Amino acid sequence: MKNNQFAIRPTDFKDQLKELTEIGFLDKDNEAETNPIQLWISFLSKSFLEAKTSSTFEEELKTYMATPEQNLGEYLDSATHVSVAAFYNVALQLLKFNPDVDFSFSEPLEAMKKIQLMIADHNGDSFTVDELKSAWYWLLATHNKVGQTYLDSLASKGYFTKFYGKITKPLLFNGKTLPVFDPHELIREVVYVESPQDSDHDGKRDLLKAEILRPRETENGLKVPVLYTASPYNQGTNDETGERLTHNVNVPLKHKTPNKLQYSDIEYHGDNQTIPEPRTTNGETKRAEQTFSRESSYTLNDYFLARGFAVIYMSGIGTKDSDGFRTTGDPEETISTVSIIKWLTGQLPAFTNRTDNIEIKAWWSNKKVAMTGRSYLGTLATAAASTGVSGLKTVISEAAISSWYDYYRDGGLVIAPGGFPGEDADVLAEETFSRRLQPGDFHNIKNQWDDQVKAIADGQDRTTGDYNTFWDARNYHKDFKNITADVFMVHGLNDWNVKPRNVERLWNGIKHNGVTQKIILHQGQHIYINAFRSIDYNDIINLWLTHELLGVENQAKEIIHNVIVQDNTQPENWTAHQDWSSNDNNQIKYNLSYDKLVTNSVSETTQSFQDHLDQTTFDNYAKHNDTWEHDLVAADEKLASNQLIYKTAPLDDDLTIDGKVNVNLKVSSSDNIGLLSFQLIDYGTAKRLTVSPTLLAKNSLAETYDWREDDLREFTSAAPTPFKMITKGHLNLQNRENNYKVDELKPNVFYNIGVELQPTFYKLLKGHQLGLIVYATDFGMTVRGNQNIKYTVQTNDSSLVVPIFTN
Amino acid sequence: MKNNQFAIRPTDFKDQLKELTEIGFLDKDNEAETNPIQLWISFLSKSFLEAKTSSTFEEELKTYMATPEQNLGEYLDSATHVSVAAFYNVALQLLKFNPDVDFSFSEPLEAMKKIQLMIADHNGDSFTVDELKSAWYWLLATHNKVGQTYLDSLASKGYFTKFYGKITKPLLFNGKTLPVFDPHELIREVVYVESPQDSDHDGKRDLLKAEILRPRETENGLKVPVLYTASPYNQGTNDETGERLTHNVNVPLKHKTPNKLQYSDIEYHGDNQTIPEPRTTNGETKRAEQTFSRESSYTLNDYFLARGFAVIYMSGIGTKDSDGFRTTGDPEETISTVSIIKWLTGQLPAFTNRTDNIEIKAWWSNKKVAMTGRSYLGTLATAAASTGVSGLKTVISEAAISSWYDYYRDGGLVIAPGGFPGEDADVLAEETFSRRLQPGDFHNIKNQWDDQVKAIADGQDRTTGDYNTFWDARNYHKDFKNITADVFMVHGLNDWNVKPRNVERLWNGIKHNGVTQKIILHQGQHIYINAFRSIDYNDIINLWLTHELLGVENQAKEIIHNVIVQDNTQPENWTAHQDWSSNDNNQIKYNLSYDKLVTNSVSETTQSFQDHLDQTTFDNYAKHNDTWEHDLVAADEKLASNQLIYKTAPLDDDLTIDGKVNVNLKVSSSDNIGLLSFQLIDYGTAKRLTVSPTLLAKNSLAETYDWREDDLREFTSAAPTPFKMITKGHLNLQNRENNYKVDELKPNVFYNIGVELQPTFYKLLKGHQLGLIVYATDFGMTVRGNQNIKYTVQTNDSSLVVPIFTN
Repeated sequence: MKNNQFAIRPTDFKDQLKELTEIGFLDKDNEAETNPIQLWISFLSKSFLEAKTSSTFEEELKTYMATPEQNLGEYLDSATHVSVAAFYNVALQLLKFNPDVDFSFSEPLEAMKKIQLMIADHNGDSFTVDELKSAWYWLLATHNKVGQTYLDSLASKGYFTKFYGKITKPLLFNGKTLPVFDPHELIREVVYVESPQDSDHDGKRDLLKAEILRPRETENGLKVPVLYTASPYNQGTNDETGERLTHNVNVPLKHKTPNKLQYSDIEYHGDNQTIPEPRTTNGETKRAEQTFSRESSYTLNDYFLARGFAVIYMSGIGTKDSDGFRTTGDPEETISTVSIIKWLTGQLPAFTNRTDNIEIKAWWSNKKVAMTGRSYLGTLATAAASTGVSGLKTVISEAAISSWYDYYRDGGLVIAPGGFPGEDADVLAEETFSRRLQPGDFHNIKNQWDDQVKAIADGQDRTTGDYNTFWDARNYHKDFKNITADVFMVHGLNDWNVKPRNVERLWNGIKHNGVTQKIILHQGQHIYINAFRSIDYNDIINLWLTHELLGVENQAKEIIHNVIVQDNTQPENWTAHQDWSSNDNNQIKYNLSYDKLVTNSVSETTQSFQDHLDQTTFDNYAKHNDTWEHDLVAADEKLASNQLIYKTAPLDDDLTIDGKVNVNLKVSSSDNIGLLSFQLIDYGTAKRLTVSPTLLAKNSLAETYDWREDDLREFTSAAPTPFKMITKGHLNLQNRENNYKVDELKPNVFYNIGVELQPTFYKLLKGHQLGLIVYATDFGMTVRGNQNIKYTVQTNDSSLVVPIFTN
Repeated sequence: MKNNQFAIRPTDFKDQLKELTEIGFLDKDNEAETNPIQLWISFLSKSFLEAKTSSTFEEELKTYMATPEQNLGEYLDSATHVSVAAFYNVALQLLKFNPDVDFSFSEPLEAMKKIQLMIADHNGDSFTVDELKSAWYWLLATHNKVGQTYLDSLASKGYFTKFYGKITKPLLFNGKTLPVFDPHELIREVVYVESPQDSDHDGKRDLLKAEILRPRETENGLKVPVLYTASPYNQGTNDETGERLTHNVNVPLKHKTPNKLQYSDIEYHGDNQTIPEPRTTNGETKRAEQTFSRESSYTLNDYFLARGFAVIYMSGIGTKDSDGFRTTGDPEETISTVSIIKWLTGQLPAFTNRTDNIEIKAWWSNKKVAMTGRSYLGTLATAAASTGVSGLKTVISEAAISSWYDYYRDGGLVIAPGGFPGEDADVLAEETFSRRLQPGDFHNIKNQWDDQVKAIADGQDRTTGDYNTFWDARNYHKDFKNITADVFMVHGLNDWNVKPRNVERLWNGIKHNGVTQKIILHQGQHIYINAFRSIDYNDIINLWLTHELLGVENQAKEIIHNVIVQDNTQPENWTAHQDWSSNDNNQIKYNLSYDKLVTNSVSETTQSFQDHLDQTTFDNYAKHNDTWEHDLVAADEKLASNQLIYKTAPLDDDLTIDGKVNVNLKVSSSDNIGLLSFQLIDYGTAKRLTVSPTLLAKNSLAETYDWREDDLREFTSAAPTPFKMITKGHLNLQNRENNYKVDELKPNVFYNIGVELQPTFYKLLKGHQLGLIVYATDFGMTVRGNQNIKYTVQTNDSSLVVPIFTN
């Protein structure tokens, strides 16, 4: 059991007293108290919110132990000083730690240190009155066993309801905003933003529906910032019709005609479509005409709704109640995404409905916006940032795509997002095209939509897998230079849906923009991390947004580490670093020698493998990708002739890979086509983290009192496993130079290739072996032609280059 | 896609009008309307709650299609009649069915029939005004695609908030209560009931904490009924210390000394402990002194909290904030459980705190109580019913234990609840002993608690597995005769945690009590079914409780079928029956012939199997019970000498097993010990239901507007499997007569045994084979001694007797 808090703000004593007073822990009755016992009782009585009388309060005191032999009631009756040990014995209980499991009453400070909880300064064995005030301050800021600060746990019991309706500005504690806004009094309103585009070509600018939740206090003049989540899924999805479009991946790899294409030949330059004139405004109002009962919400946003932030969800072009067509990430979608930010900052109009042209302004907005959300949502945040739109102060892009080619393609191959073979840009467009869910609307645009889907299918070009103008239009790297918003990235090092290259290119692509950039790399797949026990993610984002959107000088940029990485070798361990995947990292070059990875020179050899499988084995692997994945790494005999495996000797010391591993091969194919896949493996039996977070307690994380809840989760240790895949990569042998130019591939001729595997941060423990598997068909990601191709590697002209982390 | 609604109440037209008026769909503006189009518009305008102006309303109309070519706006502008087809086209869209997937605009009535949705009476192709009123009534009562009636979906959008604070009695629709009570205005209070027992022997009657949620309207004189959930888990659990007590099951089966015990020798007669005098009351109040912010709630209760019911959670003896010790289901726990019912009906006092003896009465109670909850919670409901306590009108016992021997033991063997090898009564007592979570309280009783755990461990007697006085004290069958409450049972036919015998004995044990009994048998394991899409469980329970607790004459007892069973062969299919597992069912007797089950006579043979496995295989199965389970049924070669398998010929017709299958064997053991296990198998490749329900949409089921939510779930079809276990059973060969008398077992001597397998309701499809597997060690449930024992079956003196369902 270990807590990791990265968002605690160093606060001097004077400010501690001020904040304790503002939130009501110090008041005229206790601020001059000279008896530390009486002061402690006063703090406790303000915290035991469920006890409404002195009898119930005193009964509750008796349920805590202060020393190994005395309960808290007895202690307070008899002691003259507040001993540090007694204080932290009680603190640990208030924080829900368990004496039978987590600590001992005889050594509370030992447990505090072990769990990584802050112990307040003290000069002796007992707290002075001032030390006690400070200790109470830090206790309020400390995380409990179930993923919340003690103060937030009090909030969930109703501590801050006394502030409801009396607030004229956000209330802060330790640099973070507090839940003093009644979430049941939120104003929910819909507006239609007029976006400067006509993506459905109906001759009118697209109107885009936005769902707004803002504190009631805005009606009395409070200006608030906005957390904006652009989610194409939020108005519903077409799972069945999307599924029908899913492509068959049991198709052969095809020969591509060589060409001499240069980047300028396929570069996207925008379209020259003229945009219809804006609507003529018919008047203006401050009142919306439409509301909504329940948005499809992100629990991180829910947390901020009680803390004085407005939240907006907008689904964009081609979704229910909006105009336009889905495009899967092209510039039209980016224009759609930023339009609400332009409305919030007074640069675009919105209307109360789709008919009357009555304008409604964001008169309650403080003109500062952050974007939140994961996956496609985070992608659109990245896209929005790449426009440099003013008002967008920061994006929190979680598991975000930074180039759609890196999502659906790789190295001249169609490469599926992990778990979704056959998905592509056209499928995603259809799935998110929620205008279909309103048959009265859909009826009028059905044929145009069919054309649009076909155009996307043509553009994405599953035949070659090459980078082309379609993908260039969906590559945000090109506009990284425009990013002026601070960027907070979150990505899973085991995310094989949106692969880590997407975030690594963003991380390394904006280093010279002059913006602040932060990144958290966790051990999950494609998940949210805002309800984990072992890291104070909500607090970190609170500190961040309080600075970015409220302009509070809380030192967020200095306090939050640039890089926070979750350790892959033990649970609940997060470490801070200065950088990730730096070009300055040292490298180890391994040579390939028979089945080994060695650092000395090697003799001349070739090794071969084939790609074909008997039909039964093929069918089984095609159906059960997990079985294939296991058999591949386990070197199952069924795949003995279908792969080459190279391993280092057992490592003498821990080895941490930091960045992009490169594979260099001299290789031939027996045909005029060829694809290669690579996996880097950690071989060595060890307890590893569970693949998905374990659900610790359903609905146990309250965002505040009587409001929405989240499920507490954590990565825990699973049963020992003999290996784990670290990272992977793919290449079409006809794309040896780049992803758009097609090279000739002559059968049985050796070519040099270089493949950059997905970036990672991975610690191999001493005694483990680093392994490289070279194979062809990747049942989870590539096409599966089951073709009769033999690949031969000239091992002495091949190598593996591994960037390493050094402290 | 198929809906099953069992709680629709036939309602005559006059009552329909009355109810439509009460909920506001008919009012003085539209009740005399003669134009059906205008009336329909009026209904729609009252339903489109998000549209606040005529423009937004008209825009919304246009998003629906009324005919294959006309949207609803166009239709309402041009039509003179409301065609039945247009009405149901729109109805299907309002119910969230999808024209691309679920229905066609040219044949809406076909879809209504296929999905099993009610079509209102009509004489022509168009609705008259009266027919339209009735059609709207039935639409409101109809379930949508996401598990709610249309009216409840309107409630979740805020339809009933206009009634908040103006209610003096529950508001009904179609025999069920509506969510007209503001859940954010609930009063939350704690009382301490003085229970007539002293289970921790401290010389004082046990005080038991109860958490009460009641509508604010009770403050103005409304008397309300109570849903009471007795949950030992609700105040927290001791997972770690419980885990430490878990027993090793890799231990040998031991020889038991034969005895001549009769039931009277082991019968439990109660203890003669004297109970301390009640506390002297020091005064009385109507106001509680303690509150709580968030109870650990059952979402079914949450649903009723907005509907005018109070909800109480009480954890009972030995839990946090209460006195006493955990006992795991003995009469002390039953006394603890019913004490709150006695308080609610004025038969016992409660106090505002644990110190001052100030009495507080349940002055807001209408003195009618129902109990809810699953597993241990349902068990305590059954236990409470078996006391005949007055005021308890009904129990809804879900997945409930009816005799703890049937939970932790079977046939003279220690038999674990599925998935929990090594758990026992002592482990459960420790896990639920949440007084440990309050160290100040626990400190004073630690030693006594250690003694109590030891006493339970002694009493449960893992050495013999025999039924004894300890288990007799925990057998509610003995008191079934006292049950006067109506009993609503719910149980999973695949529940191997609380096995179906528990509910079958309750079902068949109270048939002569003169109470009403209902049962729903689903295809799940140990789960709740109140958030399923295909059955209207919440509505059923609403109809039931509205009758039982509010005394409304809504014909609940007649409308709700006695037996509702979920079909195991296809999703979303629930059927109604008169009885389950009746003694009158026809039977088929199969004889054992080599590897076959036959109905003709057979020749004399013996067949043998052993129990021992090589250590590697044993260790693997001990660690991976699922692998063992699969290999057993798949007849994997590793188990070839460890089992006998008998199968029928492929069935000529479907065969439905209804009740308790019996296995009769003539068998010998090579040792003076022996245990036999049996599994009945459905052999035949078919798509079967998923083992656990599929999560369809997280948090999508709103209990009412801006209130708690549940996850929508459903059993779906999984990939085809070659077999499925139907039911199982176990016997210690030294308990051939009964569970308490130990018989001699001579090595290699043949004995006749009869084993009743767990009751079931299971349909085998035509072409499938019914199979019986005879084996010894059950890796998931029995002890695992890996002993060298050989079992021999005299097959010609053995048989399988199968009760069958005939329409």
